[in-house]
Amino acid sequence: MIDPVALAAALIRADSITPARGAVFDVLEAALQPLGFAIDRFVVGEAPDGPVENLLAVRAGTGRHLAFAGHVDVVPPGEGWTGSPWSGEVRAGLLYGRGAVDMKGAIAAFVAAAAQEDRAPLSLIITGDEEGPATYGTVALIARMAARGVAPDLCLVGEPTSAQRLGDTIKIGRRGSVNIWLSLEGRQGHVAYPHLADNPVPRLVAMLAEIDAVVLDHGNRWFQPSNIEITDLYVGNPATNVIPARAEARIAIRFNDEHRGEALVARMADIAARHGGQARARISGEAFLTPPGALSEQVAGAITRHTGLTPELSTTGGTSDARFLSRLCPTVEFGLLNATMHQVDEAVAVEDVMTLTAIYADIIRSVAA
Amino acid sequence: MIDPVALAAALIRADSITPARGAVFDVLEAALQPLGFAIDRFVVGEAPDGPVENLLAVRAGTGRHLAFAGHVDVVPPGEGWTGSPWSGEVRAGLLYGRGAVDMKGAIAAFVAAAAQEDRAPLSLIITGDEEGPATYGTVALIARMAARGVAPDLCLVGEPTSAQRLGDTIKIGRRGSVNIWLSLEGRQGHVAYPHLADNPVPRLVAMLAEIDAVVLDHGNRWFQPSNIEITDLYVGNPATNVIPARAEARIAIRFNDEHRGEALVARMADIAARHGGQARARISGEAFLTPPGALSEQVAGAITRHTGLTPELSTTGGTSDARFLSRLCPTVEFGLLNATMHQVDEAVAVEDVMTLTAIYADIIRSVAA
Repeated sequence: MIDPVALAAALIRADSITPARGAVFDVLEAALQPLGFAIDRFVVGEAPDGPVENLLAVRAGTGRHLAFAGHVDVVPPGEGWTGSPWSGEVRAGLLYGRGAVDMKGAIAAFVAAAAQEDRAPLSLIITGDEEGPATYGTVALIARMAARGVAPDLCLVGEPTSAQRLGDTIKIGRRGSVNIWLSLEGRQGHVAYPHLADNPVPRLVAMLAEIDAVVLDHGNRWFQPSNIEITDLYVGNPATNVIPARAEARIAIRFNDEHRGEALVARMADIAARHGGQARARISGEAFLTPPGALSEQVAGAITRHTGLTPELSTTGGTSDARFLSRLCPTVEFGLLNATMHQVDEAVAVEDVMTLTAIYADIIRSVAA
Repeated sequence: MIDPVALAAALIRADSITPARGAVFDVLEAALQPLGFAIDRFVVGEAPDGPVENLLAVRAGTGRHLAFAGHVDVVPPGEGWTGSPWSGEVRAGLLYGRGAVDMKGAIAAFVAAAAQEDRAPLSLIITGDEEGPATYGTVALIARMAARGVAPDLCLVGEPTSAQRLGDTIKIGRRGSVNIWLSLEGRQGHVAYPHLADNPVPRLVAMLAEIDAVVLDHGNRWFQPSNIEITDLYVGNPATNVIPARAEARIAIRFNDEHRGEALVARMADIAARHGGQARARISGEAFLTPPGALSEQVAGAITRHTGLTPELSTTGGTSDARFLSRLCPTVEFGLLNATMHQVDEAVAVEDVMTLTAIYADIIRSVAA
């Protein structure tokens, strides 16, 4: 048996600010080795987005193959912690440390569950770069799995999905995300001679007003409405008497499964072009949905048995690595409370780690059966 | 007699990047001293807008009192001159150097004219800070004149007003100028959770669209229409997934004599407030007009006699120190060609300096008569 709280504490104590390499993987490998997993650690990528370490652990067994995905890297601790962010100490029933809920606690719970349910075929897909650019993280792991013929039937991502109480929310999809940089050229001049200049700012303002008025959709059964936010404006003109030559803006679109990133980019580029502007885009991920079915029912059933809660099937929040894994097989996300993630004094209730271990063990049993 | 070209060259050779002090005033004082002027040089102000040197030269006489206003400071030369920007050398009939047209050539011409017309009551109001903040320049000179009871009947500002040929344009007014900084506060948040944030950018965009649609007036007999330019935008949000807490813009209004700066600020602040924003303003100067009359007729008459041109009575262009002097007495501006002002290889035709001297002498005679 493995004590998930002790394992979570050991993972917290291991150096792992994104991108994580080395020590934290040593701790994880040492825990998995006795459980019959074949462990494949590999480093990929070059600067600026790499190198990144990843770990793929595979165990044969009988029944359907469940993959658990997660990350051992953490965001920087920031200032103002009560104790050390790397203490992994328990105070008043709470285990403290950067990564306690996002998501070393969940990884420890799943390893402990895998130790209990030792006949189920399992994979652990663990990256050292989820919080960073993620260029060489889960994407590289999926390529590694394909190359080695590792093909799970279902995927469970252990991100902290619970909002108020452990088990109140699972994610069955995520919105897509695209950022678009808009720019407009004009002709610089003196404000006293506007007829000799072409101020691009009023055209940018008109362009943004038009973009802001766009209603992409009204949401649907599983998704909230797609949303456009103007996240930055830039002209950078220090001189009060100068009409600037260029104006820029950046928008962020979080979109549901009624849209594809490319089509949204084309639509925004079309609006930009009508105002004489340019659009340059980076699509972070497409929307995905694992329609409610066997996997979500098994996860929800396990949660209800151990907490009494009926989890909400949600698609809210930011992007996660589930956007990559969902191309492989049906994917849902379930993990600890997200209230303190990325915050000072990040902490998880010891009781929640124990309950999550029991839920994960239940899911492993249900899926394999 | 004074050779205005030699005096202009001596002024060019004296160090005088804004704010000018010392040497260039020594040259001017040495030229004025033999002409019967009582010379008052004084230094005022503290950092950052001071100290600034100014010179007030007053000569008694019979007839109406004409004041000539100008500045001996120059803008920095910049890179790429054919010769030294401080050479004051004549090549192919052109006197080269920073300040040749703006406005040491005109000062030299007026001093030479004052030497010719030695019975007219005259003042020279010369500052060392017109190109800089101008906080302690002409404003301080006007206060000095008031304290000493120097009260000219008419004022001639020697800025380079000519556009294509010497004498084609005189300025009988200038538009006012105000810069307004607009800001909007919102609440920062994650783009994935827009309902928890309040993005100020769409409100700024709506505010600016409303401001851009304002028609202040359609111009009038002497002024072109007042104009609003959006000169800067700022959010400064590097994070693509963050909804910013604050958005800013800056506008510049050049307005004619149908408006007062304070009223325009109030009007823009009212629009800003309707969108939840703030406005902070700096009024650089009010519009002014010296209605066509005796002074402009005397200046125009002298120009026609020496050039054959009938000058246009203009109110275009940026602000000048005439905005301060016009509170004192009727004020017009007339000087050299402005084509090379503030540019590399600034130069004035020797012939223009001679003609301008003759025109200024004619004006001195006409005004005093």
